[in-house]
Amino acid sequence: MGEFGLIRHLTENIEIKNRETLKGVGDDCAVMDYGGERLNLITTDLLLEGVHFDLQYVPLKHLGYKAAMVNLSDIYAMNGRPRQMTVSLGVSKRFSVEDLEDIYSGLRLACEACQCDIVGGDTSASMTGLTISITVVGDVARDMVTYRNGAKENDIICVSGDLGAAYMGLQLLEREKAIYNSQLAEAQQQGKKIDTLPQFQPDFSGREYLLERQLKPEARKDIIEALAAAGIKPTSMMDISDGLSSELMHICNQSKAGCRVYEERIPLDYQTAAAAEEMNMNVTTCAMNGGEDYELLFTIPLSMNDAIQSIPGVKAIGYITAAKDGQWLICRDGTEMELKAQGWNPLKES
Amino acid sequence: MGEFGLIRHLTENIEIKNRETLKGVGDDCAVMDYGGERLNLITTDLLLEGVHFDLQYVPLKHLGYKAAMVNLSDIYAMNGRPRQMTVSLGVSKRFSVEDLEDIYSGLRLACEACQCDIVGGDTSASMTGLTISITVVGDVARDMVTYRNGAKENDIICVSGDLGAAYMGLQLLEREKAIYNSQLAEAQQQGKKIDTLPQFQPDFSGREYLLERQLKPEARKDIIEALAAAGIKPTSMMDISDGLSSELMHICNQSKAGCRVYEERIPLDYQTAAAAEEMNMNVTTCAMNGGEDYELLFTIPLSMNDAIQSIPGVKAIGYITAAKDGQWLICRDGTEMELKAQGWNPLKES
Repeated sequence: MGEFGLIRHLTENIEIKNRETLKGVGDDCAVMDYGGERLNLITTDLLLEGVHFDLQYVPLKHLGYKAAMVNLSDIYAMNGRPRQMTVSLGVSKRFSVEDLEDIYSGLRLACEACQCDIVGGDTSASMTGLTISITVVGDVARDMVTYRNGAKENDIICVSGDLGAAYMGLQLLEREKAIYNSQLAEAQQQGKKIDTLPQFQPDFSGREYLLERQLKPEARKDIIEALAAAGIKPTSMMDISDGLSSELMHICNQSKAGCRVYEERIPLDYQTAAAAEEMNMNVTTCAMNGGEDYELLFTIPLSMNDAIQSIPGVKAIGYITAAKDGQWLICRDGTEMELKAQGWNPLKES
Repeated sequence: MGEFGLIRHLTENIEIKNRETLKGVGDDCAVMDYGGERLNLITTDLLLEGVHFDLQYVPLKHLGYKAAMVNLSDIYAMNGRPRQMTVSLGVSKRFSVEDLEDIYSGLRLACEACQCDIVGGDTSASMTGLTISITVVGDVARDMVTYRNGAKENDIICVSGDLGAAYMGLQLLEREKAIYNSQLAEAQQQGKKIDTLPQFQPDFSGREYLLERQLKPEARKDIIEALAAAGIKPTSMMDISDGLSSELMHICNQSKAGCRVYEERIPLDYQTAAAAEEMNMNVTTCAMNGGEDYELLFTIPLSMNDAIQSIPGVKAIGYITAAKDGQWLICRDGTEMELKAQGWNPLKES
């Protein structure tokens, strides 16, 4: 059924009872109207050890930072500003107070960068792994809220930053972890009574950017501010957490539209391309399906084409078409590939 | 350090950056001011299998219902009304789509009872146990928001419903679980190739009320509505989740006050007393330290003493004193016992 299908199934036919609820399930945030000058936004994310992160190579401070950023990113993806955050931690006895301080120092750093207040928290015992649940509330001017469903035919499709780097960073971390574990097992088989390899040096030289993208993603506050300063209101927007392909399909399906995006226009960092080649992977596949970029994907009217050029770090990658024309990636050699989402089923993966 | 000390430690010196944040960590909810007619409230709770619930005897529908109710209760504890809820589930492959439907049917039932909208959700794979994280947003009229810190000398201390029943319900469930497990182990030792005892009949006769209080708690929407109808605004309020003793101390400490509460005034159901006697437990200890009652504890000015009599299911149990006079339980025989909280340390328990 896939994660999105499952959520849809579980929440379908939920009757909205409060006039304060403008938009429920189905976008980066839910939207609420409490009668003030601005609308409110809310988003939540649950991160589980062994599924969303691996403590063998993720430092706790980075984990806190990233856990905050992925939620803050959802607020920006509605064209909003984050204001308040609640944090719930489930921790087992292998964690010390200092460990929790490390997580919180990352959370606080991310909140300072995005001007968000930590207003609530609870900390529970966990029988198993580390659990982090974060909720962020934000606000947005009434006429600036940006949904996924507003893309119109001929709109230009834009992305911020570059794609695929966080995914390649993950591949590198997993590769070095496998090497480490096999060296450790070998030493133990030779009779050495050790359970760590303190002298092990993972090989990340020249790939620091990829690690940073995986371990310390940044929500694109700067892009939202630049769009506002340039007077550009996107017609649709979301953040790229599951890969460009999947997110393009969300925008097209919810906007009842098609699209044509161009492989040669997809922004890639040199390190992403070099690491992909080294690891025998197709860099376009990494960018289309890798995920965890936390860049912004948005559409703007054709009339804004000049204005968008003035914003550094934003690239036009294609345009919106009629729904009947389908959703296509135009490859460098001119062949056309229909977009596919790498559907993710939470009941299958574990 | 205790759970509350730990949260205080991790969140201390957090500088509030947004004028929209009125109250952060330290009450049942955080309070936000977005400039509308009413203030906003937010609360969150993380429930972990094996720590907060035991699926051997908790049906999934009840689990969903209770997970929602404990959060809804926090909104009422600020004198507010719940409006929106987000739900995150972490599930392993032993759960089917039907299991998730059961959890959601309980969530939806609770939300219908309290007129709350489910506006967001995500469902993740979990490598281990079931994880449920819920956040609720509510609102409250500006002049009606009720904190823990407003109790004044001579205020009357009131509680709704009766106390200790949920705790006794838990004892019964644990007792029958132990009997079941030992009968199963015995059968297996006798060579029976079974892993369940389908014919096992737990003995709960005459104790249905206690089970219901444990498995299906009700947030006291009715009390909040009755207080409003009677024109009573409590000076302080919170819900009783960790036991009367601990919550009285929160209200007194945050209000910089003392209290005198009377053992003979603590509301008890007959079944609670009978089960405590049967299990050789002190019923007052169960009521003071048992927890999970989700009743409301609040204080009202002495001048409201007549008005409160008209509200069914509310009982005055004592009064607020000066801080220097301490926090006391006056026993039936006239002896005075100083209140103690059963501090709970999440890093110790697991």
